Amino acid sequence: MEFKTIAFDVMGSDNGLIPAVDAAIKLLYERNDLKIIFVGNEIEINELLKTKKYDKKRIEIFNTTEVIEMTDGIMDIRRKKNSSMVKAIELVKNGKADAVASGGATAPFIAGCVFILKTLEGVKKTAFMPVMPTIKTGKVVLLLDAGANSENSGADLEKFASMANAYAKVILGVVDPKIGLLNVGEEKTKGLDYHREAYELMSKNSSINFVGNVESRELASGDVDILVSDGLTGNITLKAIEGMAKNLMKEIKAAITKTFFRKLKALGLRKAFKEVAAKFDYKNHAGAILLGLNNIAFKSHGSSDMQSFHATLRMTYEAIKNDVINKIKSALKVN
Amino acid sequence: MEFKTIAFDVMGSDNGLIPAVDAAIKLLYERNDLKIIFVGNEIEINELLKTKKYDKKRIEIFNTTEVIEMTDGIMDIRRKKNSSMVKAIELVKNGKADAVASGGATAPFIAGCVFILKTLEGVKKTAFMPVMPTIKTGKVVLLLDAGANSENSGADLEKFASMANAYAKVILGVVDPKIGLLNVGEEKTKGLDYHREAYELMSKNSSINFVGNVESRELASGDVDILVSDGLTGNITLKAIEGMAKNLMKEIKAAITKTFFRKLKALGLRKAFKEVAAKFDYKNHAGAILLGLNNIAFKSHGSSDMQSFHATLRMTYEAIKNDVINKIKSALKVN
Repeated sequence: MEFKTIAFDVMGSDNGLIPAVDAAIKLLYERNDLKIIFVGNEIEINELLKTKKYDKKRIEIFNTTEVIEMTDGIMDIRRKKNSSMVKAIELVKNGKADAVASGGATAPFIAGCVFILKTLEGVKKTAFMPVMPTIKTGKVVLLLDAGANSENSGADLEKFASMANAYAKVILGVVDPKIGLLNVGEEKTKGLDYHREAYELMSKNSSINFVGNVESRELASGDVDILVSDGLTGNITLKAIEGMAKNLMKEIKAAITKTFFRKLKALGLRKAFKEVAAKFDYKNHAGAILLGLNNIAFKSHGSSDMQSFHATLRMTYEAIKNDVINKIKSALKVN
Repeated sequence: MEFKTIAFDVMGSDNGLIPAVDAAIKLLYERNDLKIIFVGNEIEINELLKTKKYDKKRIEIFNTTEVIEMTDGIMDIRRKKNSSMVKAIELVKNGKADAVASGGATAPFIAGCVFILKTLEGVKKTAFMPVMPTIKTGKVVLLLDAGANSENSGADLEKFASMANAYAKVILGVVDPKIGLLNVGEEKTKGLDYHREAYELMSKNSSINFVGNVESRELASGDVDILVSDGLTGNITLKAIEGMAKNLMKEIKAAITKTFFRKLKALGLRKAFKEVAAKFDYKNHAGAILLGLNNIAFKSHGSSDMQSFHATLRMTYEAIKNDVINKIKSALKVN
């Protein structure tokens, strides 16, 4: 059997080793052609693994002595050459792993991936692309860039669209993905220069199904499969939506448990609330691929718990299994 | 008694005259020192008023023959000199009204207000400032600019902060409003040049209580009173949050009425849901002042219903009553 191998940087996230290791073991049980290389402090990892049951043939440890901290910047990638993050990325570069996943600091992760793995031919900027829930059951939307960049050109956005298009087809199984441009209004003249440039380029691109400008209020409508944006706007939109979903669920919980009578009634609706909460639980969408590289790289939230890491590793596995990089290369017509 | 007079452009919004006129009559009952000048087609307005009961001394009609349509652009302000929108703004300019309110097209409204009423001394850009709900009961947050501009400088953002500061004190009664800068992270180096410029300027401004960068997920937390942003990001954030609130409430409604048993239980929780829905009902927040002018100008959503127009007119009235323009002038130290 050909194994799918993930180099998993288990250091440097907010919640320590435990949720990362637990998530990996859980996924190893669920996918029997998966191998995980834990990259981090060998003693600590072994200490933890002692208490667990798992298939020893499918776990390796790559010992590292340094950690990229949340407060570290881009330059620390060069300073901490023996960090778990750098080494995990290098394992992919050297062909020891098929993909890298990390819950560590974002800016060093992007820099490390770009320096070590390099971007695809013709791709100037990478993009974070989370998979987000919509109100249509079973339907998700890909938002990119969700924050790898601060500024993007229209040409960047067109590349994002092409890459996401390939991803949506192969990973989500969408036949002809609908692609929208996140903007302040529907008319083609809306927004800034890079919006109009992106609109023009995507309209002319016959390989994608560009449906025009889409307002942020439509993000979760399920009407488009892919929403393209510059990194700053995409990041702020993502966080606004996550925050609102969280706040509103909290408010509803408070309102329905305010009195004894309400609590009693609410008991009978627990399943209903759980359904909605599960649909809009961003923990299931905590991981995002860093698109535009020669290899597969996934980033999980710094504050990831077991569920979040599990979702990220699952997506990483799916990307390997479906040979997503070659599909993207074909879409971009590069080698 | 000194009357507060609103010139109300009742043409050109999506839902016709009825919700606009009904909202005005409702507020006239609630505020006995309010006068409304309906600006629009006299025959249509009179036809409608025939069926209503109201204080005839406090309603006037200013007949106009043209309408700025939703599809009209900035230049149409000059082409349609006899439109209800232009005439309503002129009534303020000529001292016949204390403020203007409209549910018409946004771009022409901004252009008309800027051309006719002019911006305050030293203010280069106007800003839309909706009053938005937060999870803290009774606490709102002012977001500006929510879309009057596409691009803003750091200096624009500092002016927005000063104006919003005066507004929050006098209209919301907040003693020392906390002001945040909408950004992709909390560190002062985050974002684009204009963010860093705004951060610097606001930090140095001793007349305001600047608390630093705030991420969009904190918008509804109630931790800040004012959130300053460029117009494009502000607009996209506003719509993302509105859309998410609407989608989530819809999802919950669907989930709790999916089965007969759930419907039965949900009946007992109707009040709870209504409480949350009322809190996050953006109809109560559909109006936004266009800040930065020499006079008071409010814009209501193009799709406003009676409740939305009522909220907008109420805020317009409060702005007149509290002499908000002079308070802003003092804050900006201009005449």
